[in-house]
Amino acid sequence: MAGPDAETSAEERLIARYFRPLATHPGAFGLGDDAAAVTPPAGCDVVLTTDGVIAGVHFFTDDPPENIGRKALRMNLSDLAAKGAKPIGFLLSVALPAGTDETWLAAFAEGLGEDAARYGCPLLGGDTDHTPGPTSVSIAAFGALPHGTMVRRSTARVGDCVVVTGTIGDAALGVKLRGDRSLSNQWRLTQAMADHLEQRYLLPQPRNALAEAVLHHAAAAMDVSDGLAGDLAKLCRASSVAAEIDVSRVPLSDAARTAVATVPGLIETVLTGGDDYEIVLTLAPEKLPTFRAAAKAAGVAVTEIGNVRSGVGARFFSDGEVLTFTRASYSHF
Amino acid sequence: MAGPDAETSAEERLIARYFRPLATHPGAFGLGDDAAAVTPPAGCDVVLTTDGVIAGVHFFTDDPPENIGRKALRMNLSDLAAKGAKPIGFLLSVALPAGTDETWLAAFAEGLGEDAARYGCPLLGGDTDHTPGPTSVSIAAFGALPHGTMVRRSTARVGDCVVVTGTIGDAALGVKLRGDRSLSNQWRLTQAMADHLEQRYLLPQPRNALAEAVLHHAAAAMDVSDGLAGDLAKLCRASSVAAEIDVSRVPLSDAARTAVATVPGLIETVLTGGDDYEIVLTLAPEKLPTFRAAAKAAGVAVTEIGNVRSGVGARFFSDGEVLTFTRASYSHF
Repeated sequence: MAGPDAETSAEERLIARYFRPLATHPGAFGLGDDAAAVTPPAGCDVVLTTDGVIAGVHFFTDDPPENIGRKALRMNLSDLAAKGAKPIGFLLSVALPAGTDETWLAAFAEGLGEDAARYGCPLLGGDTDHTPGPTSVSIAAFGALPHGTMVRRSTARVGDCVVVTGTIGDAALGVKLRGDRSLSNQWRLTQAMADHLEQRYLLPQPRNALAEAVLHHAAAAMDVSDGLAGDLAKLCRASSVAAEIDVSRVPLSDAARTAVATVPGLIETVLTGGDDYEIVLTLAPEKLPTFRAAAKAAGVAVTEIGNVRSGVGARFFSDGEVLTFTRASYSHF
Repeated sequence: MAGPDAETSAEERLIARYFRPLATHPGAFGLGDDAAAVTPPAGCDVVLTTDGVIAGVHFFTDDPPENIGRKALRMNLSDLAAKGAKPIGFLLSVALPAGTDETWLAAFAEGLGEDAARYGCPLLGGDTDHTPGPTSVSIAAFGALPHGTMVRRSTARVGDCVVVTGTIGDAALGVKLRGDRSLSNQWRLTQAMADHLEQRYLLPQPRNALAEAVLHHAAAAMDVSDGLAGDLAKLCRASSVAAEIDVSRVPLSDAARTAVATVPGLIETVLTGGDDYEIVLTLAPEKLPTFRAAAKAAGVAVTEIGNVRSGVGARFFSDGEVLTFTRASYSHF
């Protein structure tokens, strides 16, 4: 019974135990107020983005709980990186089925907290509810960059080079493996290769280390999350340009290269499957050397894969032929 | 089939049709980029909050769709108002069951758009997904106020007056009526009274018109969303003070007054039921006259209901007795 000295609720206790340790920003007020207050660096804009995951849609119900919050946070961090922004913090909205045990919640929060520390992106506030539906996690993340400098999708110029970070297609292959592990043999993968692909699906590697280099070099950029083909097509539409991509130059991991060599049709999965959380950017050719140096210093692999042309659409050339895809990008909707 | 000139996806078309019209902020880039960019007013902090609604938990599945987004937005606007912040904009995350028809989505977006315009809080970005679960809407809202001036929960002082806006308990009674309309007769309500209570549940009336007056007068403040008794107890805990409230002074609508006069036990529902989206604040007694004048100018009713004392807890006095409640505040968790 709650008398005049009303006790803390179950929700308050869970928040205090599992989420308050993530709220290291002084403006989060230890999650003890209605809102957070953040002072952006002088002369800076605040960059805002939101993305989330739903059990059974974006992750498997039995995925390790410590990865689920991290995945949701990293999806947002990848957007900030592609725009050239430095993380400030994030808001978390979690809906949990009744009966979610505290072990799950503890692991979820621990994983999220590791990433909040790793990427310098503390928890600023949140909202927790029970739901009759599946577990869902929605994150809104914030970053800062000098006023007016956000790297847009719409500013690619004819003559720019097209560059991508990391490797493409791993997560799209990984989620297929996650659903049917017999594919590993069909694709002639070693266990280490199969593990690599599944891990890339479970845990994106956002390229925040490259954000400053993107800010200073890119003409246009976007996060690759719905497949390179579809996302590059979006960038081209936004910029009213075309892109010509040499498929043989698209960077693949050893695992993806082996799978595609065994089953050539998988190149479509690689280019359209999504969940890459890499950055595709365009930049003036004369900026390539300093950009490459900055990327090397940041420890992020970057690969030139094609060029921006006048025209419409993103064309992927393989052995002189233009590839066509049954769908250019993945949509959860 | 998506060829080299990949077409827009179903998701992009829905966003363009229904949500882009709400993205009136130039930094939303027409929802056509990975993120939004906002320039806070010079010398200002950004205030951030998140709250959301889930069908079957926070609203009824057959509630009018035009009210659902508005309710979610207003819950967040109420937090900004209680902190003294002026709205900048919001991020929207929507999960929809497969088969949600476009009529529903159109009404949802139209209602949300009306409020975005009414409260000067444009859409900055979003995330739409299909879900195997119930419809859910999560909003992250942002406001601005001069650096370091966010009104906290933790800064009430012994000797302050306690003030609330509007009327208390309407929504808590309204949701009971919404579940069992025969209660209207038991409570001896007119149809207009019953409609008033249900409407207060369906559509909160956040007190953003009072935000500036709160900023300039309040010692401490918070949004009343989980019941006045529990929320005031939280404010007292955060401030290490006690509050003594005269229940006879708690402002009730004619409808709530009639219900409580008929069924006196409903006073517990009124004081603990939640969904009020009013503001409870404390302020120095000498500031009351100018605060009252500012509230009158803003068109928001304010009522002095008690005082801040030294000690622990929020005590509600009725005819000289301290009320005790079976639970002090509503929790969805």
